[in-house]
Amino acid sequence: MSLVPAPITFLSDYGHDDDFVGVCHGVIARIAPDAQVIDVTHGVPRHDVRSGALVLRRALPFFPPGVHLAVVDPQVGGERRAVALRTADEDRILVGPDNGLLALAARRFGGAVEAVDVGRSPLRLEPASATFHGRDIFAPVAAHLAGGCALGAAGEPIDPDEIVEMHMPLAHIDGGELIAHAIAFDRFGNVTLDVEHDELATFGLRLGYPMSVNGERAVYATTFADVGAGEMLVYQDAYRTLALAVNRGSAAEVLGLTLDAEVHLLLA
Amino acid sequence: MSLVPAPITFLSDYGHDDDFVGVCHGVIARIAPDAQVIDVTHGVPRHDVRSGALVLRRALPFFPPGVHLAVVDPQVGGERRAVALRTADEDRILVGPDNGLLALAARRFGGAVEAVDVGRSPLRLEPASATFHGRDIFAPVAAHLAGGCALGAAGEPIDPDEIVEMHMPLAHIDGGELIAHAIAFDRFGNVTLDVEHDELATFGLRLGYPMSVNGERAVYATTFADVGAGEMLVYQDAYRTLALAVNRGSAAEVLGLTLDAEVHLLLA
Amino acid sequence: MSLVPAPITFLSDYGHDDDFVGVCHGVIARIAPDAQVIDVTHGVPRHDVRSGALVLRRALPFFPPGVHLAVVDPQVGGERRAVALRTADEDRILVGPDNGLLALAARRFGGAVEAVDVGRSPLRLEPASATFHGRDIFAPVAAHLAGGCALGAAGEPIDPDEIVEMHMPLAHIDGGELIAHAIAFDRFGNVTLDVEHDELATFGLRLGYPMSVNGERAVYATTFADVGAGEMLVYQDAYRTLALAVNRGSAAEVLGLTLDAEVHLLLA
Repeated sequence: MSLVPAPITFLSDYGHDDDFVGVCHGVIARIAPDAQVIDVTHGVPRHDVRSGALVLRRALPFFPPGVHLAVVDPQVGGERRAVALRTADEDRILVGPDNGLLALAARRFGGAVEAVDVGRSPLRLEPASATFHGRDIFAPVAAHLAGGCALGAAGEPIDPDEIVEMHMPLAHIDGGELIAHAIAFDRFGNVTLDVEHDELATFGLRLGYPMSVNGERAVYATTFADVGAGEMLVYQDAYRTLALAVNRGSAAEVLGLTLDAEVHLLLA
Repeated sequence: MSLVPAPITFLSDYGHDDDFVGVCHGVIARIAPDAQVIDVTHGVPRHDVRSGALVLRRALPFFPPGVHLAVVDPQVGGERRAVALRTADEDRILVGPDNGLLALAARRFGGAVEAVDVGRSPLRLEPASATFHGRDIFAPVAAHLAGGCALGAAGEPIDPDEIVEMHMPLAHIDGGELIAHAIAFDRFGNVTLDVEHDELATFGLRLGYPMSVNGERAVYATTFADVGAGEMLVYQDAYRTLALAVNRGSAAEVLGLTLDAEVHLLLA
Repeated sequence: MSLVPAPITFLSDYGHDDDFVGVCHGVIARIAPDAQVIDVTHGVPRHDVRSGALVLRRALPFFPPGVHLAVVDPQVGGERRAVALRTADEDRILVGPDNGLLALAARRFGGAVEAVDVGRSPLRLEPASATFHGRDIFAPVAAHLAGGCALGAAGEPIDPDEIVEMHMPLAHIDGGELIAHAIAFDRFGNVTLDVEHDELATFGLRLGYPMSVNGERAVYATTFADVGAGEMLVYQDAYRTLALAVNRGSAAEVLGLTLDAEVHLLLA
């Protein structure tokens, strides 16, 4: 990071019905009035740490390096640690609960090379509540770090290799079938699979090929417009991850998929 | 535009559940870190180009001149053009898909006097995805233009008269009846009709007059408080367009109106 | 206030489906382009002045002093006054309809010591609409005040003691029972009661004590993690107000509570 104050990004499952997001912005504005705060999203499903981790991993490369505040925290007030970490690449700072939320994004930037436990940070608001660490711990720590405070001054040093990992199902090929999993859904009913760009070559997909997806007809295509309305396509999504969609419809509904459901892809 | 960077406004149908809006903000912040970005709304119904065009037309006059990014784009990846244009009045720059979304707003500022096709803009992110042109084409082009880049450097010149129009039903008077159409709804169930301030004189509406609206009793009034709870009023809305409302209720529900439905107004 | 322009906070019941919030931001940006605008929330239930007043009261202390714009305005266009006031403590400026929305927050900062009626403010947009005072009156007045305009120049002086109060049910102890009321709900189904930190000592709650809440078993605890999944806790919420929650569930649903419903707490 070179700019002071550094930009702050903010992701959470707080939604927009309440004042949770606004109050965190307020806390940051009191501490770092000149810092730019950019909301990544606050629409992560409540308590869904893995969805939050996936969104953070795919989104952060599009944001300027800075301080990345993320709060999806079902165990708030329990024994999970609160952490801030610095990544190997681009010197990004991630701040949030140590429950796997930060792990995938950190790995995308070379992993954590320095980390501190901020649960009792001298930078937190007092009295810190038991239930709103976004406001009382994470937002003020992020604001001070954006303002130029050294990571080491934000909490007690911990081993960066002990940041909690995020474990997920693993796609694999079995007898000509690609067995993947539905790891995320967007509001349009598009389904993200656990298959990345680099793994696709192995399976031998080619544009325009007919396929079957859990027994339904589909085609491997570049974009929605390549198939008719109501037809299913398999495609690399905008983040270069394999995905399913129905043109002007919902692939999640057509296939009846729930989170982590197996998706069997077969060349027709 | 005189300020550099110019302010950027942003309208879309992306909603707030996903990270689409946030990621576009991130892309802008990387290119034009000092540009102010103001969200117009991201609640346009999915793929509803006409609603987006109507909101853009009525909202933009309240924003400072600058770069106006708008993305409602059902044919993304298909053959529709991606454009940036400059308006005759106030030198506003509009950026988005060329599917009618920009046409009404452009006309409000005297029409387009210069336009470029930005589909293969040298300013876009590489590799550009087939499905997320908001992030890969429109946001980076808008950010560079806000930062002072000339319109001509953003893409290939096209004839500004060829910007795609937005066609809509047309209100008319027939035998003492004003036949209008329900062209938009807000979350309160208020209904916008396709009748503007200047057309009203012709029909002879006067404040306090009783009327019938599709057979239901109503009164032409200034404001909600002029009628009792549950009663219908016909009024000029905050944008000086004719509208229907039910005080503390929903006119859309009471009348059972869907988009473009005919609304017959008769002086009682 | 010392910064010019002062930061502006913005709370309303406008939601995010329409362009209402965005257009108010646009109006502010035209008048005070350098002012920072922080959204508190726009998810206040439609026309629910009391919920808005409660959120404003609890949220504002976490925001920097400045101009606090708030619009929940069921009587817009009717006889309620439009006001701007200055608080005794911290010189905060509150701007909004005079319907009780501002009263609780003003009292938290020592009450109003100066107030003006801004309904016909020389700072408003012309022609001012009858139905969108957020855009035409409150936002421009707030923007000019943030830019350094004196309160007295924004409207006609009125007696600050005549700012409309917000009346609410009152918790009390009766025969060993604490009879409180459900005064607010968040999206997680947590229920705020009308009992503040300082009133709790009287009732003799102690951490870990079993209790009954409307006949259901509960425990007085510090945090969600102190009880098992599906169990009810009574706790001081993040704003130090007494509240009810069900760990990973909804207390509002379990108890079937509606707004202002009586909640009987009894030590078991």
